[in-house]
Amino acid sequence: MRPIPSVLIVGVGSGLGTSLARVFKAAGYRLALAARHPQRLASLAQELDASAWACDASDPQQVDALFEQFDRTFGAAPDVVIYNPSARVRGAITEVDPHAVAQALDVCAFGGFLVAQQAARRMLARRKGALLFTGASASVKGYAQSAAFAMGKFALRGLAQSLARELAPQGIHVAHVVIDGAIRSADRPATPDAPDALLDPEAIARSYLQLVEQPRNAWTWELELRPWVERF
Amino acid sequence: MRPIPSVLIVGVGSGLGTSLARVFKAAGYRLALAARHPQRLASLAQELDASAWACDASDPQQVDALFEQFDRTFGAAPDVVIYNPSARVRGAITEVDPHAVAQALDVCAFGGFLVAQQAARRMLARRKGALLFTGASASVKGYAQSAAFAMGKFALRGLAQSLARELAPQGIHVAHVVIDGAIRSADRPATPDAPDALLDPEAIARSYLQLVEQPRNAWTWELELRPWVERF
Amino acid sequence: MRPIPSVLIVGVGSGLGTSLARVFKAAGYRLALAARHPQRLASLAQELDASAWACDASDPQQVDALFEQFDRTFGAAPDVVIYNPSARVRGAITEVDPHAVAQALDVCAFGGFLVAQQAARRMLARRKGALLFTGASASVKGYAQSAAFAMGKFALRGLAQSLARELAPQGIHVAHVVIDGAIRSADRPATPDAPDALLDPEAIARSYLQLVEQPRNAWTWELELRPWVERF
Amino acid sequence: MRPIPSVLIVGVGSGLGTSLARVFKAAGYRLALAARHPQRLASLAQELDASAWACDASDPQQVDALFEQFDRTFGAAPDVVIYNPSARVRGAITEVDPHAVAQALDVCAFGGFLVAQQAARRMLARRKGALLFTGASASVKGYAQSAAFAMGKFALRGLAQSLARELAPQGIHVAHVVIDGAIRSADRPATPDAPDALLDPEAIARSYLQLVEQPRNAWTWELELRPWVERF
Repeated sequence: MRPIPSVLIVGVGSGLGTSLARVFKAAGYRLALAARHPQRLASLAQELDASAWACDASDPQQVDALFEQFDRTFGAAPDVVIYNPSARVRGAITEVDPHAVAQALDVCAFGGFLVAQQAARRMLARRKGALLFTGASASVKGYAQSAAFAMGKFALRGLAQSLARELAPQGIHVAHVVIDGAIRSADRPATPDAPDALLDPEAIARSYLQLVEQPRNAWTWELELRPWVERF
Repeated sequence: MRPIPSVLIVGVGSGLGTSLARVFKAAGYRLALAARHPQRLASLAQELDASAWACDASDPQQVDALFEQFDRTFGAAPDVVIYNPSARVRGAITEVDPHAVAQALDVCAFGGFLVAQQAARRMLARRKGALLFTGASASVKGYAQSAAFAMGKFALRGLAQSLARELAPQGIHVAHVVIDGAIRSADRPATPDAPDALLDPEAIARSYLQLVEQPRNAWTWELELRPWVERF
Repeated sequence: MRPIPSVLIVGVGSGLGTSLARVFKAAGYRLALAARHPQRLASLAQELDASAWACDASDPQQVDALFEQFDRTFGAAPDVVIYNPSARVRGAITEVDPHAVAQALDVCAFGGFLVAQQAARRMLARRKGALLFTGASASVKGYAQSAAFAMGKFALRGLAQSLARELAPQGIHVAHVVIDGAIRSADRPATPDAPDALLDPEAIARSYLQLVEQPRNAWTWELELRPWVERF
Repeated sequence: MRPIPSVLIVGVGSGLGTSLARVFKAAGYRLALAARHPQRLASLAQELDASAWACDASDPQQVDALFEQFDRTFGAAPDVVIYNPSARVRGAITEVDPHAVAQALDVCAFGGFLVAQQAARRMLARRKGALLFTGASASVKGYAQSAAFAMGKFALRGLAQSLARELAPQGIHVAHVVIDGAIRSADRPATPDAPDALLDPEAIARSYLQLVEQPRNAWTWELELRPWVERF
């Protein structure tokens, strides 16, 4: 009997994190969800029979504790770890607050490192696993008035690319998803005249699952997703 | 009842073309296969109940005739068209034969244009369809001793990217697959000590199918695939 | 005494070719200019004491003859060869004429190969020389309604990148210049309200000269140039 | 009479910073040099009649103070600001110290933001100036065993690209130099059998000066430099 696979999703709060949880659950995964404010996840966690833990992903101690909690609860390394937090900062370079920039680097990039390090230690012991990172348009293009977000997302992509080169030959699949467009959400619903002009978070989540299911002879390290009407 | 979808695969000869045919057949597609030497496809065509037609894809008249044949046989535009031919030319810049370079450009790129033009005319009338191009490592990196192949594959990528920008907002999904590694084949079998170090053509073909099945709110225009042990 | 260096500029017709001739002349180079219609170069050639030869750069025999003419006239390999021809084709994929596409590939890319092959044979014998290619925005971004131009310019970039990897370790500097914006010309003059919104061809030409003058311990293979107000 | 231009070079310590100082001095610039340990700069500063100030570029207060010191000393905005600090961290993802990663992000990227912000405020008031960033191979390629350095350098590139898009239309030239190879230094001298296999810091510095001297109708935002024998 094939054992039940597990996924740890870090940064569940927005629509995408929730859709990732649902899609992986439907595919038979056992779930652990982490967020800075896990109380918001309570009903989702109950619905999906998932663990929901508090974690500030940019704090080394909290990330250590998160993975130790995972070890105790699941008794094995996670099959899949997804790093999803983001911190968008906008504004003219002359106006943006340095503290907000530091935080964008922390949340977008440093937290990704911390989570990747813990995940890699566990996955390398088994020489298998998948480590996915959520990117954005800003991962590959630095836009005006968006230096801090570009810094954070470029850095996360550098991390993911470095890890892909380092870990793939050891059996770990590292992938970076460039989400190039706005995601449909409660705050940003589809409109009748443009019903599919926004990215559907469930469609994105299915692409994450497809990445995880790729056989290792045909891995993708970077996947970009955008709505048909999006300019690029 | 959902009508049976159709796929036209141009350049069936190597292992990948055959796997594409099998995978799309298994997904319920009706097949048309084109190759310069279609007699080699006879048994495959019979097995898959596919049309198999002769076509030199770099000849405008023959590509015209191919699509007219498709029209007559299928009575509708193809849902999916895949451009798969390739012409690898190697050698020092000082030694390579100009005729071989011209042919590489013809087969890798000009034929892609001809097929895309015919496909676009038919798909735009319905504002739906998918157009896929087979790329290689040489599509994104010009290697020494491989100028002609780089020229052809870079050109095909330029075509695909331009078409993605032009046709996506009209409902046509254009995608370019960068196959970054050697494909397992009868000539190049897996070895016992490295059973999955080569790309499996069936795994590649399943990725083509996944691209075609993406909802248009979350399209990928470029997908790269490589074996876990491949350096990049 | 340092010998007088020589430059062969292929594709002199537009403003850039003329500026390249003037800038290299001013830097002490002896000039050979090639164009499909060299009669248009007569006064420039006289002014700059330059050879001006007819050549369709996409014809192997004519390119052979061009370099033999160079050999006879200069008695030595060219120090610098610049490939400058271009063929812009615009239009919807459904409308563009296949013959225009074939020609765009010929002029933008195949001619570049032919010239590079002849240049490389001569430069490799001395293990020195510089080979420069003129690119465009379309070299790195395939725009809608511009598939043919993207194909030609992507292909030329693939050639240049492959040659940079092949020839640099043999002492030949290969460089590709991405001209990302419109060039000021008689047909497209500067306007009083935007006096420097267009690329100045002399400024571009000086950048070509700087590339040629780079010591081989610090070579650039690709340089992009754009006006300050150009979006990218 | 043209006023004497000024350059502020942040991160003078390695060979490149010193060469930048010498090359800009020779071009007629008045110099301000900043480093964490400015006492090491004493003799250089004296030789070049330069100001030499202490600054930890990743500390907001110190960067504020640095620019205020510049204002008081020079009485005008800097014409050129160069951000040169770097922090290379190597090691397997499982082994690298999180504190070293945080520091790499601070020195490579956050400091670049702080310096850019102060520079932009001063340059925008005059709608002129040049802001240059020193990148590395790791700016565009994430190598195995080098995640932290890739994070820092990718982030700095994202900053520079964002600023190029934001500030160029306001008259500020932002450029990013990808130094793709090892720089010759006292610790890493040229060898008789490969006298020019390492980047000469003076050659690099001359390229920085050329970038600064580009007219704004033909600006480069990214320049890569590598030795002729370097693989890429």
